[in-house]
Amino acid sequence: MKSIGGAAIGTVILGRRALAQLPPVRVDAAALRQRLEALSAFGRPASGTFADGVSRVAYSDADVAGRRYVIDLMRAAGLAPRVDAAGNIFGRRAGTDSTLPPILFGSHIDSVPNGGNFDGDLGSLSALGVLEALATAAVRTRHLLEMVVWANEEGVAFGNVLAGSRVVAGDVKADMNDIWNGVTRADAIRKIGGDPSRIVEAMRPKGAHHCYLELHIEQGATLDRENTPVGVVEGIVAIRRYEVVVSGVANHAGSTAMADRHDALLAASHLTITVNDVVNAQPGQQVGTVGKMDVAPNVPNVIPGAVKLTIELRDLSSEKVERLAAMIQERAAEIAKQTRTAIEFTLANSTAPANAAVEAQRAIERVAGRLGLASRRLPSGAVHDAQMMAQLSPMGMIFVPSIGGVSHSPRELTNWDHCAQGADVLLGTVLEMDSA
Amino acid sequence: MKSIGGAAIGTVILGRRALAQLPPVRVDAAALRQRLEALSAFGRPASGTFADGVSRVAYSDADVAGRRYVIDLMRAAGLAPRVDAAGNIFGRRAGTDSTLPPILFGSHIDSVPNGGNFDGDLGSLSALGVLEALATAAVRTRHLLEMVVWANEEGVAFGNVLAGSRVVAGDVKADMNDIWNGVTRADAIRKIGGDPSRIVEAMRPKGAHHCYLELHIEQGATLDRENTPVGVVEGIVAIRRYEVVVSGVANHAGSTAMADRHDALLAASHLTITVNDVVNAQPGQQVGTVGKMDVAPNVPNVIPGAVKLTIELRDLSSEKVERLAAMIQERAAEIAKQTRTAIEFTLANSTAPANAAVEAQRAIERVAGRLGLASRRLPSGAVHDAQMMAQLSPMGMIFVPSIGGVSHSPRELTNWDHCAQGADVLLGTVLEMDSA
Repeated sequence: MKSIGGAAIGTVILGRRALAQLPPVRVDAAALRQRLEALSAFGRPASGTFADGVSRVAYSDADVAGRRYVIDLMRAAGLAPRVDAAGNIFGRRAGTDSTLPPILFGSHIDSVPNGGNFDGDLGSLSALGVLEALATAAVRTRHLLEMVVWANEEGVAFGNVLAGSRVVAGDVKADMNDIWNGVTRADAIRKIGGDPSRIVEAMRPKGAHHCYLELHIEQGATLDRENTPVGVVEGIVAIRRYEVVVSGVANHAGSTAMADRHDALLAASHLTITVNDVVNAQPGQQVGTVGKMDVAPNVPNVIPGAVKLTIELRDLSSEKVERLAAMIQERAAEIAKQTRTAIEFTLANSTAPANAAVEAQRAIERVAGRLGLASRRLPSGAVHDAQMMAQLSPMGMIFVPSIGGVSHSPRELTNWDHCAQGADVLLGTVLEMDSA
Repeated sequence: MKSIGGAAIGTVILGRRALAQLPPVRVDAAALRQRLEALSAFGRPASGTFADGVSRVAYSDADVAGRRYVIDLMRAAGLAPRVDAAGNIFGRRAGTDSTLPPILFGSHIDSVPNGGNFDGDLGSLSALGVLEALATAAVRTRHLLEMVVWANEEGVAFGNVLAGSRVVAGDVKADMNDIWNGVTRADAIRKIGGDPSRIVEAMRPKGAHHCYLELHIEQGATLDRENTPVGVVEGIVAIRRYEVVVSGVANHAGSTAMADRHDALLAASHLTITVNDVVNAQPGQQVGTVGKMDVAPNVPNVIPGAVKLTIELRDLSSEKVERLAAMIQERAAEIAKQTRTAIEFTLANSTAPANAAVEAQRAIERVAGRLGLASRRLPSGAVHDAQMMAQLSPMGMIFVPSIGGVSHSPRELTNWDHCAQGADVLLGTVLEMDSA
């Protein structure tokens, strides 16, 4: 790349030193806010406002309308938007060296039902803002810059989280005849401009990108609580999910003495507390959750005979997650003995962590520092398209604070200053990675 | 009653001394077993056996058929069976003193879905066996003896437990236009030979009976565990049921740090264990149960935001039940504080205890002793028609062991010797109470 770097010496930007001397290029904060507000209209509850959140589930009419709005903005910015076979939207700005792989950055605009107006939207519209700001400042990069709006990130439709980026990363196993809400996956993809018959053409090979960058709201409370505007994502956590069946004996809640009980819910309650205790007893940022619990027969005057529950563990380290699971299972055996029940674990799901590239983390930290913004490293407990892109090339993610850590809710909120700062950090990181 | 006792001196039985000298009168154990087996056919699962239990829900075709079977047996025994306006079946055998109120005894033959063949059936057919045995032995009693088969004891239909005995005790508030399974209560009562338009005629006044006696399976494991054939019921417990709402904050199970959670299920788990701990920490036979728990949104990757659960407390002493409830609520306030949730209690149901008459308890103990059967006093944790009859006159209940304490299940089982012994204790207690 040295010779290419040399060839690019006459362009506006080059190298870290040059970068540091440039007048600051900034994303248009007012336009970013105006567009987030405008996008929120697509899928807004009837007679609601921005504060009432959004239901823009992938492949819905609201999703199609929101995508059209973004595509129109991209076209107006001269990005020649293109929808790939999986329904992902791409827009490009040429670099000075066409032999270099693109820097890809973006996010998604689909939402969960009754979701918020920042999850995905911020990263998508900031990506557009970055390309516009560079055009306005006439800054040329060595690498081609490519923005992306991923399809069906939330996976509400077809239960297929990260659907669009998954295809680009090379996973085309999804059955096009699957039906969700009365529509096949093939028809859903066609509805957003994709082409299910040519889905394999959306795949990209390893090394396809110089790097992938994504700005996103934290969806947790760490940055907000610590009043830190920039989060440097260390990686996206490994997830291990168990389905647990607790078997006791259903019996009469009046005539069965306490000593004669085999209460499955009592055992499940001890297990729920154990998950919390084991996770909290370790240093680090791991989390553990019992999110789902179903009791049978679930009537007030019958001792519960069976409980099904889920245990989900997340951490950047797969080893740690496995260690926590082993400790929980060991304690579960004691609980079963004490409560005279049986507790059976089935591993339902296990995903590996996706580490952010160290050079991307450092670039984000340098940019934040130059902008006078405090930053901290933290894991992403939530899944993101970035973990799919990490399979192809180095990945970096920038978080901005979620007020109160609320997300997937109409009350999801990030203040406008933090939105603009995040977009500027994304811009700066694109330039840093371009010069790396 | 002394003069009446004197007037009856010429009849076969009189007074406790005379009773003790008589040749033993016994219920026909073989007939009892044969009839329990025959009755089990009405509501038996297709191609099942006695061991497969029964579904003879009140007002069903199976219930009508089972009632017809019992009515036919009663008619054959010369008892001139009569169905009252509420659908209860009565049969009488005259006493020597028509000025005395009747001794009433019996049980029910309706079942829960997938119930057993002893719950109610044993007490009903034993009552018939008692009247037949006295007829065979030509034993006359001073009091008129009346057997009863109560309608809809289980309350599966119309959610109205103890429906028939409740009317006899004077509660005629049930709305005849209520619909269950597409049928009005009025039509259901007509189906079993009652007359909803004359329901008030089924009411009986306080003092209507000399006493009420009921033989029933324990439905708990105390007698079986202690290998004691006869349980002397001290009373039917008070019940206090709370509906509890635990409010936390639903949030992302990946991105929400442990320290930032308001996990409603974690709080509910602590509360469930607290119910168990508080109840177990007191001496006595009280029970406490969390039988129903519903979690929202109840998905694996969302921290539970709300949990609804029930707490049910039972003991012979209303004061103790209230004290336990107060202790649980006090601890719940601490749990709410620690888990940063809100816990709200609503009293959904509260019933007073029904004490068995001391003279009935003593009579049962004397009879068991004469028959060489060990007995022990114990509360009834389950509700029984006897608690309605306790509102009118002295009440006594005899329990026989349930193997493993299992009831409301096809696996409900009482061995035939215990069935026969229970019937004989009922017979003896009728005679004891007659001479009291």
